[in-house]
Amino acid sequence: MIAATAAVPGFVGGTLDRADQVRSDPVRLAEAFADRRARMLLLDGLDPVVDGAAIATASLPEDAEPTDFVLLGIGAAGPVFAYLDPALGTAATYAPKVWAIAPLLSPDQLALYGTARSLIDWHARHGFCARCGTPTVPSKAGWARRCGGGTLSGSESEQRGCGAEHFPRVDPVTIMLAEHDGRVLVGRQPRFPAGRYSALAGFVEPGETIEEAVARELWEEAGIVVENVRYAMSQPWPFPSSLMIACVATARDDALTIDMTEIEDAMWVTRDEVRAALAGEAGARFLAPPEMAVAYHLFRFWLGE
Amino acid sequence: MIAATAAVPGFVGGTLDRADQVRSDPVRLAEAFADRRARMLLLDGLDPVVDGAAIATASLPEDAEPTDFVLLGIGAAGPVFAYLDPALGTAATYAPKVWAIAPLLSPDQLALYGTARSLIDWHARHGFCARCGTPTVPSKAGWARRCGGGTLSGSESEQRGCGAEHFPRVDPVTIMLAEHDGRVLVGRQPRFPAGRYSALAGFVEPGETIEEAVARELWEEAGIVVENVRYAMSQPWPFPSSLMIACVATARDDALTIDMTEIEDAMWVTRDEVRAALAGEAGARFLAPPEMAVAYHLFRFWLGE
Ligand SMILES: [Zn+2]
Ligand SMILES: [Zn+2]
Repeated sequence: MIAATAAVPGFVGGTLDRADQVRSDPVRLAEAFADRRARMLLLDGLDPVVDGAAIATASLPEDAEPTDFVLLGIGAAGPVFAYLDPALGTAATYAPKVWAIAPLLSPDQLALYGTARSLIDWHARHGFCARCGTPTVPSKAGWARRCGGGTLSGSESEQRGCGAEHFPRVDPVTIMLAEHDGRVLVGRQPRFPAGRYSALAGFVEPGETIEEAVARELWEEAGIVVENVRYAMSQPWPFPSSLMIACVATARDDALTIDMTEIEDAMWVTRDEVRAALAGEAGARFLAPPEMAVAYHLFRFWLGE
Repeated sequence: MIAATAAVPGFVGGTLDRADQVRSDPVRLAEAFADRRARMLLLDGLDPVVDGAAIATASLPEDAEPTDFVLLGIGAAGPVFAYLDPALGTAATYAPKVWAIAPLLSPDQLALYGTARSLIDWHARHGFCARCGTPTVPSKAGWARRCGGGTLSGSESEQRGCGAEHFPRVDPVTIMLAEHDGRVLVGRQPRFPAGRYSALAGFVEPGETIEEAVARELWEEAGIVVENVRYAMSQPWPFPSSLMIACVATARDDALTIDMTEIEDAMWVTRDEVRAALAGEAGARFLAPPEMAVAYHLFRFWLGE
């Protein structure tokens, strides 16, 4: 038996109403910002400040400007914002501190934090218009940036910019288990902790489907040909802003040609070996990914197939 | 009976090896560029020039610079490139001319065109670093842009830039049919041709799963609550670079509250009404989306459920 585990991957299960219509309505946005119940997430740099199973919050500062905040949504207790702190800079892709804190938070709070982190990081990395180079400013309650209106020195036309509106990136990533004859393929990247193996993964590129991306990644990284790609589940991954799309695929054979520039090792593991790894058994053949990761839940999905 | 139809949505089914390892290897890339069999797609602006069921191609110009091209992949007949024409500017999101041409092309050629169009458009809209405003230049065989190295006037430090590497965007979009009691919900946008209804759709936002995005869109646009979201299929949509993720969801009830800023009408339609629409019958209750669109195939998926 596998011990009690999180029912869903981390960052899944946000409960706030994202209040899409408020974002584009200056009157309603001003009302939300002036709401006496409005709260902002408390962060330590880009890491969450934890208060029990929740992220600590505070009232909005009295001198706060709405354009410095993103409206994460509106809940039963009122609007929730995050401060787009220009001093924070950009986030690291690897965030072991957050990964240690994550299990303390309830699923909806972790999902809320993930949304905030992705957006704060996106703003930090998109201060300029990719189309014309002009400074951009936040718009739509922090859910967009508009070219022009910046306060840097420059000619008037530079400040005006091209007017383009830019939206936060969400990068789709496929993460997959190839199966063959009752075993699945796991691999390890050099940066993994000792003993850990996980599902292979890679970004979806322009011009391909999810299924095509799965097949291409498995071909590129492991030299195997797959068919019958099955979608399992998805997860937002805020390091910085991926949409993890988890799939299982059937491999035609089990001969491997590993691309050592991507993964340092790969191997086929049995159902029993996967069960032992997920249960954290001392003698397990490999160390499973943490429950926060969608890969953990993909293993469970495959065991249940 | 439905007449013979395309087995897959448009832009699905590319067959070229994307040759990921060649992109980052200057020696192998130079070899591919110098290959006497290398071809480039012929485009008319951003539209394809059609030669039978294929996109017309030409040899690479003798004075061509590799950095002005994207390596789309390597096929049995050699490497295939597309020219990143700086004069083309950015592409329109709506491209009726391409939609008229698309059915003429074989699936793999249409997929190849879609990849090229997304990449050309991405380069045209990303000439500057979003992080620091410095001009960027293509890198990795057209699959990235690197900050710095631009030729615009400016101080040396501006030209050097921050060195950030930027990758093409792929924007995940959910497109969904809500079903209730044997009927599905269809809606129409004001720009649709007269009589057309289709599946509702919307971008996946940071911090949400595919399933959460489906539920949010249906709540925002139609005021319905759904559960049991089922993934059906995906499609790359190069206008400019979306990943369409098609799903079916079960609605708790059929009372609608339509957001008129998003859709101008919505209605529940029966299986027979969907069948008649897909078959293009004169008396059909609505005009179905074209076979190129994933929505057409999503209707068929639902009929087959
Ligand atoms: Zn601009
Ligand atoms: Zn830069």
